[in-house]
Amino acid sequence: MLTRIDHIGIACFDLDRTVEFYRATYGFEVFHSEVNEEQGVREAMLRINGTDDGGASYLQLLEPTREDSAVGKWLAKNGEGVHHIAFGTADVDGDAAAIRDQGVRVLYDEPRTGSMGSRITFLHPKDCHGVLTELVTSAPPTASHGD
Amino acid sequence: MLTRIDHIGIACFDLDRTVEFYRATYGFEVFHSEVNEEQGVREAMLRINGTDDGGASYLQLLEPTREDSAVGKWLAKNGEGVHHIAFGTADVDGDAAAIRDQGVRVLYDEPRTGSMGSRITFLHPKDCHGVLTELVTSAPPTASHGD
Repeated sequence: MLTRIDHIGIACFDLDRTVEFYRATYGFEVFHSEVNEEQGVREAMLRINGTDDGGASYLQLLEPTREDSAVGKWLAKNGEGVHHIAFGTADVDGDAAAIRDQGVRVLYDEPRTGSMGSRITFLHPKDCHGVLTELVTSAPPTASHGD
Repeated sequence: MLTRIDHIGIACFDLDRTVEFYRATYGFEVFHSEVNEEQGVREAMLRINGTDDGGASYLQLLEPTREDSAVGKWLAKNGEGVHHIAFGTADVDGDAAAIRDQGVRVLYDEPRTGSMGSRITFLHPKDCHGVLTELVTSAPPTASHGD
């Protein structure tokens, strides 16, 4: 079951400048940043609010690390803007399977690694009224943060 | 201060079909629907989660009521997809003024009426790295729900 808006993925040409825009304009701070070589992106997560399922909602700012990545090709075609939306779930595998049974194309056979150690998959935008849609299960708390 | 992702605005050609997609695929139900003649849209709000500022996050599905509305023109150019994102604040007037002082164009001189009696304004997407950005202050609870 999808229980929150986990994040809004926003593609940008220059991550540092875009992070600075969100900081200066709204006061949003970087909660986490990383490079995801598999996805071909350098990214910053800005935490906006907590959610009543125990998670949080973020803006995910994405700069491609190579032109032939999915985000790089999207940016070349569309320019900067909202690239995808993501819903949080405790069970990305089960939800992806159920959604596939509804006739929606799921882009990965198995979930891959997303931000902050999460497990993610994507749904085909043409099956989702034009919206590239991600499903996310957050990583469990690490030993140093759990217990 | 912006304290939540209030909603993601998604433009669609056929509201009823898109509502049915979100219900059948994800189990999301319509929380509220209305026609906003000023904005030229027929809309459905799907409540996804509560937020730790006491508000909630929604998907806002938007079908234009006329081709020359902002959403109608956007759809004709872009097809279905994410039209805007919206941040919730207790003070849309104060935040809009502060953001205008940062050099970002605010599209309305005074906030207008948005979903569920909220007060809203928009920021120019060209000043926001390609993202049409809305600021929202929810309506106070009605007498029958407050106190």
